[in-house]
Amino acid sequence: MRPWVNDENVALFTDLYELTMLQAYFKENMQETAVFDLFMRKLPKERNYLIAAGLESVLDYLEQLHFTEEALDYLDSLGKFAPDFLDYLRDFRFTGNVYAIPEGTPVFEQMPLIEIEAPIGQAQLIETFLLNQVTHQTLMASKGARVVHAARGRAAVDFGMRRMHGTDAAIKAARAFYIVGMPATSNVLAGQIYGIPVTGTMAHSYIEAHLDERKAFEAFASLYPDTILLVDTYDTLEGVRKVIEMAHAWGDRFKVRGIRLDSGDLLTLSKEARRMLDEAGLHHLMIFASGGLDEYTIDELLRAGAPIDGFGVGTRLGTSADVPYLDSAYKLVAYGGEGRMKLSQKKATLPDRKQVFRYYDDRGIMVRDVIARYDEALDGEPLLRPVMQNGRRLPDASPSLEEIKTYTQACMKKLPEHLLSLEPAKPRYPVKVSPRLQEEATRLRLHLLTR
Amino acid sequence: MRPWVNDENVALFTDLYELTMLQAYFKENMQETAVFDLFMRKLPKERNYLIAAGLESVLDYLEQLHFTEEALDYLDSLGKFAPDFLDYLRDFRFTGNVYAIPEGTPVFEQMPLIEIEAPIGQAQLIETFLLNQVTHQTLMASKGARVVHAARGRAAVDFGMRRMHGTDAAIKAARAFYIVGMPATSNVLAGQIYGIPVTGTMAHSYIEAHLDERKAFEAFASLYPDTILLVDTYDTLEGVRKVIEMAHAWGDRFKVRGIRLDSGDLLTLSKEARRMLDEAGLHHLMIFASGGLDEYTIDELLRAGAPIDGFGVGTRLGTSADVPYLDSAYKLVAYGGEGRMKLSQKKATLPDRKQVFRYYDDRGIMVRDVIARYDEALDGEPLLRPVMQNGRRLPDASPSLEEIKTYTQACMKKLPEHLLSLEPAKPRYPVKVSPRLQEEATRLRLHLLTR
Repeated sequence: MRPWVNDENVALFTDLYELTMLQAYFKENMQETAVFDLFMRKLPKERNYLIAAGLESVLDYLEQLHFTEEALDYLDSLGKFAPDFLDYLRDFRFTGNVYAIPEGTPVFEQMPLIEIEAPIGQAQLIETFLLNQVTHQTLMASKGARVVHAARGRAAVDFGMRRMHGTDAAIKAARAFYIVGMPATSNVLAGQIYGIPVTGTMAHSYIEAHLDERKAFEAFASLYPDTILLVDTYDTLEGVRKVIEMAHAWGDRFKVRGIRLDSGDLLTLSKEARRMLDEAGLHHLMIFASGGLDEYTIDELLRAGAPIDGFGVGTRLGTSADVPYLDSAYKLVAYGGEGRMKLSQKKATLPDRKQVFRYYDDRGIMVRDVIARYDEALDGEPLLRPVMQNGRRLPDASPSLEEIKTYTQACMKKLPEHLLSLEPAKPRYPVKVSPRLQEEATRLRLHLLTR
Repeated sequence: MRPWVNDENVALFTDLYELTMLQAYFKENMQETAVFDLFMRKLPKERNYLIAAGLESVLDYLEQLHFTEEALDYLDSLGKFAPDFLDYLRDFRFTGNVYAIPEGTPVFEQMPLIEIEAPIGQAQLIETFLLNQVTHQTLMASKGARVVHAARGRAAVDFGMRRMHGTDAAIKAARAFYIVGMPATSNVLAGQIYGIPVTGTMAHSYIEAHLDERKAFEAFASLYPDTILLVDTYDTLEGVRKVIEMAHAWGDRFKVRGIRLDSGDLLTLSKEARRMLDEAGLHHLMIFASGGLDEYTIDELLRAGAPIDGFGVGTRLGTSADVPYLDSAYKLVAYGGEGRMKLSQKKATLPDRKQVFRYYDDRGIMVRDVIARYDEALDGEPLLRPVMQNGRRLPDASPSLEEIKTYTQACMKKLPEHLLSLEPAKPRYPVKVSPRLQEEATRLRLHLLTR
């Protein structure tokens, strides 16, 4: 069996206990409606905000979730599942409701990014896939937003696929980075799947195969006139000199857009390269930088005045290297119309279906969020919207990628300035719990402790 | 288009520049044989050894690599590719040779894990997929080996899929963890694909849905008599007490294997739980722990004498949180029979096809590795073996997962004791370059600098 995940086998992309619990609910005839919240317990100290992402993957999954005969045969082989339960799985479809904060919205701790309202077994089964996709995509969008901000309007392009964790990570990350404002990716398949612009230059191996750097530049520019030439294979400034010689030799035929530096001290090299290009009258040639970059190094380079016009950002972006995971959770908050909560140390949850209300100041800047019960009518902007009803995606639940990108850019303009710092913000963004929800949680906690 | 990667579209899972360089080689009629090395530039300081993994994914990919009409249409739409090149891609197959260090072998900096010998365009195109898979799988196997070692023979089980980076990461990581000695995974799809044992217990939501913890325990154990009961939903020691009451009430019917602690101070709670269980005569009930574990916390718990019999290890394992990427590279080392190298600052490479020789002491413990030219006949154990010839996988190139697991366990027993420390080892494992290869590199460097 090929190790690819797809619509036919993704129903088994789940922790075993989701299936054993589903069978238990089936056998116990526990079919009442449950509500589960997907949320982040807290934000990493290195993140002042997160950007929600992953909802589209979730809706795609829920809409087509089913068990094939091959999947049922495998489950049967485990010796844990009864024939009547496997029959039930044969007809299994997700029939619940989904409420979600739109992709691209800044989000914070404790608030549900997604709420699932469905018969409890259904809502339970989907936990693993939902956490896997939403955690990763939100992680990537949040890291990408920082890189975009650090680049101060210069292009920051996704070069990360080669060291991301597997193929799915690279496809989904390219989409997340596009949403938060990266103009392009090097990932061709993500380009095909999502219609994201693809970009790239040349590798050192191309220069080395030709041995002669100048000949390699000329061959590549003959085929791709507006290319960017990689100048650091042998000696960076010598490489720049060859580009200048070539520009003079080619005259009007020279359409090269820029050079790329991929190693060494990027500050010194970019300044020296800029000086050389300017002296040669090549003011319009741009300087691109890559190699070990992230928001911290980009910020440092630009603060120091590095004349860099664009960045290729790879591994540290693509693995969110300073924060490689988020503290996400998917928790039961109601069953059969009654609130539920966990009292475990440090992992207690808020009960009941919810709404998140966002408040803005006069200038339209976010000032605080309030997590309330779903049926409270506070005067803030409600963030959770219905996106799926009885297993069917609602119209308007799936904006186009361009619409999501536009929405995300607009949201990011509403973030308080101090949250955009790359350092931990003080104060953190305030997330409150409404008095009514707080009261409900206290009441339920007492009830659970005194039963 | 569904965002799944599979055999039909994986040819486009590549950085755009691989395709533009491939077209350049095609147009320049540069079809001579190139050799590329896939290696780790250096080991992270937190890793004293790495365990090679990912070769099977590479061979699967190379054997079936092809461009569909849909892929060609997409490339055509980019406006960068000529009709004759797209025709060439239509018939593209990988026809080269592959040499590799077997999966499960401990590996170190600079040595090729995989060498590709193929017409240069072919060898170039595959760079991105190879790096993506080998970097991630080696990262996971290496992290998993540390967790297995820290658990000192106790079961350490993969619970990581929910916060790994996407679906492919979770499937491939489960395989990597199995190879290095984890007995099971919670990942059902990985179980189906690879035949890995799957395992799991129950979630807090199951307890909460029943409200009454004791009733939930009884319902679950009725269906799964040898289950493990999760005791920390409300109050951990109260949960243990309920298990004890249930054991006494059920008598011979009580077949539960153990309890799981998922929060709080695991050292104190496991000691207290053990004391309570022992006092109740339930010596055979095992204690499992989960929640935020990795090799460091497992080691700390066991050093402090925590009576824990097994671990569910999740997020920090599944994202290799202390080291979320490896400094992998894929570099041209020969073209048309002549050595090639990059001279960039801090990123210089060793030229030519290679062999890696491993030396052992009298007790069979590894003492050093020597990287040599492929045609040197040193007396160490050669690690690189031919696995694919002219695009066809060789017999014996694909051992079964059980064979790989057995081989890996044997290899890990040959690691010097001090490398097994969780702290950075001093001295590091010695990796030398043979005098002949060193001489060749010096000669070529001089040649490149003085042309």
